[in-house]
Amino acid sequence: MSDNRDHNKIELTELSELGEFGLIDRLTKDIKIHNKSTIKGIGDDAAVIDHKSEQTLISTDILIEGVHFDMTYMPLKHLGYKAAVVNFSDIYAMNGTPTQIVVGMGISSKFSVEAVEEIFSGIRLACENYKVDLVGGDTTASKSGLFISITVIGKAKKDSIVYRDGARANDLLCVSGSLGAAYTGLLILEREKAAFMADPNVQPELYGYDYILERQLKPEARKDIVARLKELEIKPTSMIDVSDGLASEILHLCKDSKVGCRVFEDRIPMHQKTIDTAKEFDIVPCVAALNGGEDYELLFTVKQEDYEKVKDMEDIRIIGFMTPDVNVAELITTDEHVIPIEAQGFKHF
Amino acid sequence: MSDNRDHNKIELTELSELGEFGLIDRLTKDIKIHNKSTIKGIGDDAAVIDHKSEQTLISTDILIEGVHFDMTYMPLKHLGYKAAVVNFSDIYAMNGTPTQIVVGMGISSKFSVEAVEEIFSGIRLACENYKVDLVGGDTTASKSGLFISITVIGKAKKDSIVYRDGARANDLLCVSGSLGAAYTGLLILEREKAAFMADPNVQPELYGYDYILERQLKPEARKDIVARLKELEIKPTSMIDVSDGLASEILHLCKDSKVGCRVFEDRIPMHQKTIDTAKEFDIVPCVAALNGGEDYELLFTVKQEDYEKVKDMEDIRIIGFMTPDVNVAELITTDEHVIPIEAQGFKHF
Repeated sequence: MSDNRDHNKIELTELSELGEFGLIDRLTKDIKIHNKSTIKGIGDDAAVIDHKSEQTLISTDILIEGVHFDMTYMPLKHLGYKAAVVNFSDIYAMNGTPTQIVVGMGISSKFSVEAVEEIFSGIRLACENYKVDLVGGDTTASKSGLFISITVIGKAKKDSIVYRDGARANDLLCVSGSLGAAYTGLLILEREKAAFMADPNVQPELYGYDYILERQLKPEARKDIVARLKELEIKPTSMIDVSDGLASEILHLCKDSKVGCRVFEDRIPMHQKTIDTAKEFDIVPCVAALNGGEDYELLFTVKQEDYEKVKDMEDIRIIGFMTPDVNVAELITTDEHVIPIEAQGFKHF
Repeated sequence: MSDNRDHNKIELTELSELGEFGLIDRLTKDIKIHNKSTIKGIGDDAAVIDHKSEQTLISTDILIEGVHFDMTYMPLKHLGYKAAVVNFSDIYAMNGTPTQIVVGMGISSKFSVEAVEEIFSGIRLACENYKVDLVGGDTTASKSGLFISITVIGKAKKDSIVYRDGARANDLLCVSGSLGAAYTGLLILEREKAAFMADPNVQPELYGYDYILERQLKPEARKDIVARLKELEIKPTSMIDVSDGLASEILHLCKDSKVGCRVFEDRIPMHQKTIDTAKEFDIVPCVAALNGGEDYELLFTVKQEDYEKVKDMEDIRIIGFMTPDVNVAELITTDEHVIPIEAQGFKHF
């Protein structure tokens, strides 16, 4: 079930053999730089960035073992990839372009150098795919679990930046891709882990769940949507990425924009596999979309006048509209009931 | 001995009562913004920064419980202060000005809301003292210990930035303040902790050690030195901050600048209390300076022609000079022996 355990079969290097500087040298050699704005990358007290006339965006996200991921089913390379991508997603949610990251990592001594390299290979793959430069970091021992704390830097022209507070009544509420998949993927992984714990000889039943498992284990950020909005000359009035679940993000837009909204259950985009899996677990499918989280899709509002442009956009669904009723967010169910949208989000504490 | 235990006497709020968003609201209300470059602070997917014609500097540092600090003697407010200041120090080491930070924090559920507020009050005090804006973060549960991961953003004119690789043979090697104090402060704290563990009724003997304890528990970054260098129109040829010990930092400058250096033991600035305390522990004082770390002083090189300007600079000592012998770093001891400088640094793993 796990890539991690396979590492025990090959000869591994203990972290103490290399030391901190040796480890950093090994992790950061041959790093490619994609952006002209990266003046100085790894190797000094600070990296140097020059975004010239564009503004700089900055965001940070932490993934912690046992809270955000479980080492028993999260391959290390995917973990690194996901840690980077969830940060990129925050920059796209501002209608910007991620350009650099710095990586903080706490690693317990039980990890081998090869395991840490595997995490980094995922981070570097994400950087390669999204053309982002790894420009610095801090790698240190942790007394307990693993954590990855990434800060992302991005750029955007001043007039292009989209905040959460620009939605107005009658704006159309749109979302990219499909929702709830990452959460149902997690349900499958948790179920198979429990089965494995009960009997380690049981092979996990993951066949056929590829789509939702990939959404959980190796999410992508919607670089393509930001690019297409630009091509179509659509500037959303507000935007946020779906990390905590659709409900939570809708409420953020409503609160910050001082508006309300009406969302139609039958418009919420869900993959058939997500729907089927939710039902397998006796969950109403739209609850997985509303409260599941980790989809990293983009939720945004556009003016009514952009309707013709967005209605045929590939992989974009209009799911509702904004209203003047401040903070009143309502779901119109398939059977035409009106129920208030409430945030669940993740309860870490 | 500890501020932390006193918290148990007053009524505390559990983290679960507030939840993540409630906690963030409470921690970040009334945040003051000091810099015009902060276009958007906390409250969106990313913060927005505009350094106009200046370049952007970025660096990150993590402090982990049990590795970088011990909760039994580190007051929470000091911990927050130190976590911020060590990051500012990296920006000063580039001859820049820190302008923003984002704060990542992993907190175990054993912490109260008030304890987390105490850490944040330290971070905010540091931001106030150094005129840095707190513009974002990620606060999440940790299954085990506490960690604080701060990323700092700074600015500098392109031509003002000082890297590690600009030292040339015959440049003068200078250091600010005094060295070894933070390390001897740590020795005292560790000794008194051991005594307290053996007998909780024993009062810790900290009287008279204020200077070195403050250097360990509440270090400052050398904003003043960067300002004075500017006033005197001295641009160092290379610079680094002393976080891992003088030896390690000297070797960084030598390696990156492809030079060697000779350092005179009797020129290394040490406070009398540091010297006395080192002797109490049977440590040769200069070893505390060379390998102790956490002093957050600035180590830099200047051209010979700047000698007249630096020789009388307050709180600056010329401790040696650079040589053409690549990577040959030597200490000339008080009794005129020549010994190679080797890095110890911290061995986290």
